[in-house]
Amino acid sequence: MELWFTEKQTPVFGITAKIRETLVTEKTDFQDLAIIDTEEFGRMLVLDGMVMTTVKDEFVYHEMVAHPALFTHPNPKHVLVVGGGDGGVIREIIKHQGVEKAVLVDIDGKVIEYSKKYLPEIACELDNPRVEVQVNDGYMHIIENKDKYDVIMVDSTEPVGPAAPLFERGFYQGIYEALKDDGIFVAQTDNPWFKADLIQQVNRDVKEIFPIVRVYGANIPTYPSGLWTFTMGSKKYDPLEVDEKQIPEIDTKYYTPKLHKAAFVLPKFVEDLVK
Amino acid sequence: MELWFTEKQTPVFGITAKIRETLVTEKTDFQDLAIIDTEEFGRMLVLDGMVMTTVKDEFVYHEMVAHPALFTHPNPKHVLVVGGGDGGVIREIIKHQGVEKAVLVDIDGKVIEYSKKYLPEIACELDNPRVEVQVNDGYMHIIENKDKYDVIMVDSTEPVGPAAPLFERGFYQGIYEALKDDGIFVAQTDNPWFKADLIQQVNRDVKEIFPIVRVYGANIPTYPSGLWTFTMGSKKYDPLEVDEKQIPEIDTKYYTPKLHKAAFVLPKFVEDLVK
Repeated sequence: MELWFTEKQTPVFGITAKIRETLVTEKTDFQDLAIIDTEEFGRMLVLDGMVMTTVKDEFVYHEMVAHPALFTHPNPKHVLVVGGGDGGVIREIIKHQGVEKAVLVDIDGKVIEYSKKYLPEIACELDNPRVEVQVNDGYMHIIENKDKYDVIMVDSTEPVGPAAPLFERGFYQGIYEALKDDGIFVAQTDNPWFKADLIQQVNRDVKEIFPIVRVYGANIPTYPSGLWTFTMGSKKYDPLEVDEKQIPEIDTKYYTPKLHKAAFVLPKFVEDLVK
Repeated sequence: MELWFTEKQTPVFGITAKIRETLVTEKTDFQDLAIIDTEEFGRMLVLDGMVMTTVKDEFVYHEMVAHPALFTHPNPKHVLVVGGGDGGVIREIIKHQGVEKAVLVDIDGKVIEYSKKYLPEIACELDNPRVEVQVNDGYMHIIENKDKYDVIMVDSTEPVGPAAPLFERGFYQGIYEALKDDGIFVAQTDNPWFKADLIQQVNRDVKEIFPIVRVYGANIPTYPSGLWTFTMGSKKYDPLEVDEKQIPEIDTKYYTPKLHKAAFVLPKFVEDLVK
């Protein structure tokens, strides 16, 4: 018997992956959680039926959330990750020796628990002494902390379910206030083929709050359309003014110093969405 | 009743698209041909079960085959397309006013015939007086023509079935000889997630023949992994030395002068394949 997992990325289009083994299916307090071992992409974390990450392609998303912002800020010491309970973004942040403290706030402790158990190559730095893990509402954490972080990264699920408030203008305002005077934030902002409206709306909202707003992209095979966007809002530093020759070599599989700026050069139809 | 088309992009992973209407299914002399109207991507040309192009995302592939080479060569007048019977690459070539003659050689006349009938937005320039369409073996055309073309574009299917010889070293040698002294060729070379070996093999072969070899990428949602690569071999002109400020504006949806160089900045794992 062959078992296949199918994600409808839109009501009329999807991806399908042959399953080797289903490791977890559980209804947490917040969402449906599954961990599936697929033949093509290895172990896969699925929340509410949507692929969050896979062992084969996770490096793209996690590197591209973390490094562009951390190499734009000249001296990031205190970093916050909202969501991201699988620990992949934390693992990339920890590669930056100057970061003294990385705080992870995920609303769903089960994501953290099962990631540690079944996705150890992703969750491997969650117990690092420079990391503080809080099972908590990221929105509330943002509201309760002012002028505290150098960089804030929003590693959320889609804007349905528990992550919906993380795509509201009020949340970006909260992030602005939680950042120090020269802080930077970055959020995953879905794909331009099926969610152009979302990218436009986030771009408009963030531009009303942050003086510097930039959008970049990366290829993630298991995410809808294979092209994912990230929106960066910055109070002072422009990622396009970084001298790429000054970016130190770190161990990556997707991000490179040359890609730091090239990732911001968007296809015309995407550029048109955010100009 | 819901009908869905599923392409197994690998034996254990695929995409699936809801069908509005099946317009053509035919066994030609060379391959299984289908034209399906899908809800997400509109009309879709399928050869041997693999998506060749869709009305929604075709612009990416066709622009990115045509424009990087045509804006690297300073004065391309005679252009050859091997394969590409749907006419999408020809449509993009015709946007370059300096091109006097674009020759299309596709082995399968049925692809041309059905594309004209069902994909008119793609095939729209096949009857342009600057275009010459030949239903013929592209490999033979290359062997029989020496020192003739400024730019040759290989718009082939996958290296199985009729297109298999188009991925052989001998074919690239033939292309070298069919090009003028300052000629450029470009070929689609599949994706780095599932076909890394192919990209490496083509890269090695082309480097033995052409002094300048460059690989670039583009995001195509309906192609495996969403990240497609193109390999360019050039006798004289380097696409990375083009002054992007000198690239004229043309009507595109993906390609931009800024993207001309940025498309060549590859993710690290892809860069490692071709260095």
